[in-house]
Amino acid sequence: MPQRLGRTLLLPGAPKILGYAAVVGQKEGEGPLGQEFDKIYEDTHMGQDSWEKAESQLVQHAVSVALSKAALTPDQIHYMFTGDLLNQNVATTFGVRDISIPLFGVFSACASMSETLGLCAMFIEGGLADHTLAATSSHFCTAERQFRMPLEYGGQRTSTSQWTVTGAGALVVAREGAGPSIHAVTVGKILDLGIKDAANMGAAMAPAACDTLMTFFSDTNTGPGDFDLILTGDLGVVGSRLLRELLEREGIDLGTRYADCGMLIYDLNHQDVAAGGSGCGCSATVLCSRILNKLNSGELGRVLFVATGALMSPTATQQGQSIPGIAHLVELHGK
Amino acid sequence: MPQRLGRTLLLPGAPKILGYAAVVGQKEGEGPLGQEFDKIYEDTHMGQDSWEKAESQLVQHAVSVALSKAALTPDQIHYMFTGDLLNQNVATTFGVRDISIPLFGVFSACASMSETLGLCAMFIEGGLADHTLAATSSHFCTAERQFRMPLEYGGQRTSTSQWTVTGAGALVVAREGAGPSIHAVTVGKILDLGIKDAANMGAAMAPAACDTLMTFFSDTNTGPGDFDLILTGDLGVVGSRLLRELLEREGIDLGTRYADCGMLIYDLNHQDVAAGGSGCGCSATVLCSRILNKLNSGELGRVLFVATGALMSPTATQQGQSIPGIAHLVELHGK
Repeated sequence: MPQRLGRTLLLPGAPKILGYAAVVGQKEGEGPLGQEFDKIYEDTHMGQDSWEKAESQLVQHAVSVALSKAALTPDQIHYMFTGDLLNQNVATTFGVRDISIPLFGVFSACASMSETLGLCAMFIEGGLADHTLAATSSHFCTAERQFRMPLEYGGQRTSTSQWTVTGAGALVVAREGAGPSIHAVTVGKILDLGIKDAANMGAAMAPAACDTLMTFFSDTNTGPGDFDLILTGDLGVVGSRLLRELLEREGIDLGTRYADCGMLIYDLNHQDVAAGGSGCGCSATVLCSRILNKLNSGELGRVLFVATGALMSPTATQQGQSIPGIAHLVELHGK
Repeated sequence: MPQRLGRTLLLPGAPKILGYAAVVGQKEGEGPLGQEFDKIYEDTHMGQDSWEKAESQLVQHAVSVALSKAALTPDQIHYMFTGDLLNQNVATTFGVRDISIPLFGVFSACASMSETLGLCAMFIEGGLADHTLAATSSHFCTAERQFRMPLEYGGQRTSTSQWTVTGAGALVVAREGAGPSIHAVTVGKILDLGIKDAANMGAAMAPAACDTLMTFFSDTNTGPGDFDLILTGDLGVVGSRLLRELLEREGIDLGTRYADCGMLIYDLNHQDVAAGGSGCGCSATVLCSRILNKLNSGELGRVLFVATGALMSPTATQQGQSIPGIAHLVELHGK
């Protein structure tokens, strides 16, 4: 049975991650984690006739490999939780359309991987399901044209801008079995400090990550020193620095055990990605490759996975709205 | 503890709906349910400077009234589940931005009210929360310009088209207390029979409603005669007729106890809405007014609420994709 400590829900049953997969594009394959992905597509179209369909192909591929690694068939999965950045979630919807599993669509922008992972684990702990599946995705080309400019326009990028990861991650959670385990979930509240620069998402999301981490540390009476890794989703260079500063003001030093998926997935010195990677696919593919690999091997013990989302749309930005941020936290333990 | 029967999850703890509210626009206020709404805004802008902000205002208002009727404050709600039709869910996100409750964003298009209601009830039954909140919305003007044409264009409407409801519904679910109760949830799978006409959503969604209802009847060994009302979300005239036909082919007669929120909310003979109402706000405002009123008074006993969603986007339609449908079912009992 789940136990509540303030805003944090402890999961004493420790649901297990039985299988996971990360499928990416060429640029991600050329980055530091290249060897750890399940599949690298050389072609940005992944054999499809549009980038949106290509993103769906990434999702379908990741789900299929995750199921296979978990040695489960779709009819054994009680629910799946999926989300992406595209209008009306079409990347994941069309990606899982032919996989016959009851579906909960979710949206937390780039925080969707921790929302879906948290829901998967909570459903298992609450006895609502025996097996659950999470999947999220993003694609540089679909995101650019939807959120910013047509690619053909060749718009200049600012130093605070981030590069949307082309990739999908999927994982399967179960009550029993061998694999990394999930011990706590802290669901984020919306925080909006008035940032309006859509080319500086890290700054919009850092306060939410700070709030969720502070809440978790306070609820569980822990601090950064109790964890081997504190991993945000896609704050990038600017947002990560801000998060450190915000926490330092509260007397919390993240020290050397902090990392950000957006800074791990690319070689920031050589891959021309400005402030790092971003997108639902960023935290999803980093989690579902190196991080879960290290939790599986025991190289990592206790990890806090804190994906952040910027809950804006181009329409909201054009109407002068600021960018609300959210961050959901999931505590993972090594096998 | 929840009990599983096939794809259906029974909730023996019978979570209760403690408070609910429906807030609508003028056209909805002039319809047959006008007397039962909590607030009717005469102005389509609801005092805001854009229709998107107006839709957020509807959400904020509905959530505020639902909390007040439940006699609860935001800090007593462990989680809220919200969703709408706008790109990146901005109507609900900005509507609840200032309400400090941990947030799970969801997306099932027009099925979002049954997804959020189902999640609220499942979280209570699984011991994951003491109080949960659901809210969804739509607005005729935001939906028209996003999914179809600028309003100023004055596009012709086909006889199969539906009128997006301007309204928001919100409700609060709890383990204890007096109110209509929730007894079962059947989460839908995606069904796509190849319909490509974005002006005929009812036809795209009817097969999903048929599949979910058939699954529920089979799982629970019940039939339409066991319920006082079987209520779909926004199939409209065309989709409702199709649903009846699809079920008749399987030997199931919906009889006189079937209704559709899209046909209840407007006077179809006099309000010029073609095949009826649609949108997240359609099922949300009908559920959170007349239906819950009648469950509250005991006038209705057992009700199946089956909101359906068309999981498409304009981009997907332009790329030649067919329209996947989904339907989530929630069984409600009168007080």
